[in-house]
Amino acid sequence: MANGKESGSAAPPLLDLTIDNITPNTIRINSQARDARLKYVMARLVSHLHDFARETRLSTDEWMAGLNFLIACGKICSDVRNEFILLSDVLGLSLLVDSINHPKPPLGTEGSVLGPFHTHDAPTLPNGASMTSDPEGEPMLALCTVRDTQGRPVPGVKIDIWETDSSGHYDVQHADRSAPSERAVLVSDDDGRFWFQGIKPVSYPIPHDGPVGKLLQLLNRHCWRPAHVHFMFEKEGWDHLITALYIRGDPYETSDAVFGVKKSLVIDLGKVDADTAAKYGVQEGSWLLKHDFVLTTQEETEKLRDQNAVEALKKLGLHNLKLVDHLPVPDVD
Amino acid sequence: MANGKESGSAAPPLLDLTIDNITPNTIRINSQARDARLKYVMARLVSHLHDFARETRLSTDEWMAGLNFLIACGKICSDVRNEFILLSDVLGLSLLVDSINHPKPPLGTEGSVLGPFHTHDAPTLPNGASMTSDPEGEPMLALCTVRDTQGRPVPGVKIDIWETDSSGHYDVQHADRSAPSERAVLVSDDDGRFWFQGIKPVSYPIPHDGPVGKLLQLLNRHCWRPAHVHFMFEKEGWDHLITALYIRGDPYETSDAVFGVKKSLVIDLGKVDADTAAKYGVQEGSWLLKHDFVLTTQEETEKLRDQNAVEALKKLGLHNLKLVDHLPVPDVD
Repeated sequence: MANGKESGSAAPPLLDLTIDNITPNTIRINSQARDARLKYVMARLVSHLHDFARETRLSTDEWMAGLNFLIACGKICSDVRNEFILLSDVLGLSLLVDSINHPKPPLGTEGSVLGPFHTHDAPTLPNGASMTSDPEGEPMLALCTVRDTQGRPVPGVKIDIWETDSSGHYDVQHADRSAPSERAVLVSDDDGRFWFQGIKPVSYPIPHDGPVGKLLQLLNRHCWRPAHVHFMFEKEGWDHLITALYIRGDPYETSDAVFGVKKSLVIDLGKVDADTAAKYGVQEGSWLLKHDFVLTTQEETEKLRDQNAVEALKKLGLHNLKLVDHLPVPDVD
Repeated sequence: MANGKESGSAAPPLLDLTIDNITPNTIRINSQARDARLKYVMARLVSHLHDFARETRLSTDEWMAGLNFLIACGKICSDVRNEFILLSDVLGLSLLVDSINHPKPPLGTEGSVLGPFHTHDAPTLPNGASMTSDPEGEPMLALCTVRDTQGRPVPGVKIDIWETDSSGHYDVQHADRSAPSERAVLVSDDDGRFWFQGIKPVSYPIPHDGPVGKLLQLLNRHCWRPAHVHFMFEKEGWDHLITALYIRGDPYETSDAVFGVKKSLVIDLGKVDADTAAKYGVQEGSWLLKHDFVLTTQEETEKLRDQNAVEALKKLGLHNLKLVDHLPVPDVD
């Protein structure tokens, strides 16, 4: 509607709205929006929100309980806690959004959920440095590479790494946090390698003292995540990869509270031998994490995403849509 | 599933979740819930949430913008401000939920949206008292009755009444509010009558300095409500009636930002004549609001609601549901 033809989206008279006519009327008044994408997103949002209420015959008490739940989520959010990401995680939305936005060709490293504990204050450390300040943790050396789908090293990638301490808490969950811990930013070297010292990750419960925890309890679900280390890869021209590596054999390997585990991301830890210990200045017999990550270019990801979008929308029976900036909007021309 | 047969709802192994399998898996893990209603509501919620993301191919940035919007709504909520009710109002959900829960037989007074400004501290006043402390308001005498669908008076009904002051603000919107104003609780007398002195209502913008206001702006929608007085009727055995009376001729009569206006609730104000002025101790020529409200019994409302639910669910193609406590749950027996 960028052509100024506004007649189709003029607000209808809004009177005597009912269960049966509220949805088209809300969509029509919202379609006064000038942004075609916003118009489409709001139309689908309103349709689903209303259908949800109609299909459940949502009671006034349930409606109010839902609003109070959202208020409680908002109130507990802080600079270091995002209860809405957690909610999105436990409802499977985070996994879904990641899958939609970061499809992988067969060779690319799969994504996993970001979770609510990434921060922007991790120190940039040289390769080989230690990111742990937890004397209770079991030392682990990580030796990794970043390559493209042809196996060529990708140098100069910024890699954000974060994990919990040995008690299963991220640094931000400690009230007395004075500095970042168990997190670092590295940069891959000319051979695409990066390496660091951390601790063997442990399984841990997601924060369950807030409204999301109460919801899980009502749903009779546990709140545990299997042991993992988060990795986030960023380099201009390459698809932003948010992923994690999970340690095989964890009791929660097949019941992650936030649906993040993929078989290709489950790894076995080894042990550091004498040569490696000497080379990297760590103790022989420490845990050893070795992994080769494969990045895809932004171009191949966008192409794949567009292909998937077109196919999926066709399968959903949503015609008359076109992709603008890789996102569907109604094709009104 | 109250019979303890849990096998059908045991958690599936959760691995390698994708765009296509995340929804049934999330629903299956949530169906560990013991409460059948919660199980059904969550299944519909997850389905719609995921379908929304799939149909829009929701981008990571849009997802994050949505979460930040929800955080902002939560943060601005206070004892006297409920941004989530406002959000529900402008998305048409409040009107829809009221319509589902309070269907009216032909003679019953129709409902309207509660809005975010009802409080629980309004003073109980004797009939005839003034609930206004606004010298700028145009005085209005209200003479009303409450009857049943057979025209018989209903005495002893608790009636909550609230409106804005002449500046278009509810008392709670003034930072220096020390006591309730422009609100009262009355009780209908033996003839079903209640009467009070207020002021002529004015049209006003809903609070638009928060995230909901920003959303309306993006949607190119105005934030005005036509002039109205809120009424809420409560008596044991009678359906809880939340409604409002709207003054005919208001510039926003057919474009209420929260979809509340119904033709049957649009009224003309008259003027107080000499006899009435003398009888009620008000000035001749003041505004006069006269209205007869019709309550329906809880029993007839519940019957109608159940009928509507059964019909609607059939029309939606949702079979294998039964009503328990008037709410649909899966019929698994």
